Amino acid sequence: MEIKPSGSQPSRTPTQYFTGRVRLDPLIEDAPEPARVRALSVTFEPGARTDWHTHPLGQTLVVTAGLGLAQVWGEPIRVIRPGDVVWFPPGEKHWHGASATTAMTHIAIQESLNGTTAEWFGPVTDLQYAGETAGD
Amino acid sequence: MEIKPSGSQPSRTPTQYFTGRVRLDPLIEDAPEPARVRALSVTFEPGARTDWHTHPLGQTLVVTAGLGLAQVWGEPIRVIRPGDVVWFPPGEKHWHGASATTAMTHIAIQESLNGTTAEWFGPVTDLQYAGETAGD
Repeated sequence: MEIKPSGSQPSRTPTQYFTGRVRLDPLIEDAPEPARVRALSVTFEPGARTDWHTHPLGQTLVVTAGLGLAQVWGEPIRVIRPGDVVWFPPGEKHWHGASATTAMTHIAIQESLNGTTAEWFGPVTDLQYAGETAGD
Repeated sequence: MEIKPSGSQPSRTPTQYFTGRVRLDPLIEDAPEPARVRALSVTFEPGARTDWHTHPLGQTLVVTAGLGLAQVWGEPIRVIRPGDVVWFPPGEKHWHGASATTAMTHIAIQESLNGTTAEWFGPVTDLQYAGETAGD
């Protein structure tokens, strides 16, 4: 048993793959093989969001605070709320983030394949975020 | 993208593998293969705890409320608090639950191997829970 006490895993600011102010709080980063699950809590300030991306083995979000948005490429933007559990299948191109006026925090859980948990495809533009295009 | 809205996954009461009053709130139960991660939130009333058990691919707990206890077979009981992240390696026999006087809630994240996420070894006795024996 290894206990990582609250406060022992410093918050981080991502340097790529996000737009706006985002904080990453690690939960599971180094569970040794054969375990492959990874998890972190992500807090998006209003208007902040991930880039477009996919996950090789899918991803689950558990929304824990605020009001968020999520979108699959080519589909409408959806609203996500605390307590919602969101599943993205492997390879589904999507983004998620805060709403324009209210921050959002979620726990993100994904599995690593060949050392990676995501592939990235560039920023969500302001027009895409505003829902004026559906990712095309 | 599948959104399971808050309230769409009913709370459950376990019928085995626990002592005391426990509530299970599903988070990830059916992510399709090749995904194998499973997750749920577990709330233990004071004195409640899991049976002794192991996980084939390990388990991570994220404590979200209250004051809890956790113990590996043959080792001392440890206190776990909100924000703590606890890792049990594959095959490590252990239990976790509330403290005697204060409830505890954690998110539990584990990976399924051959259709199972845990093997069970019987209740934690009152003497074991009181710390008068260390699982032997």
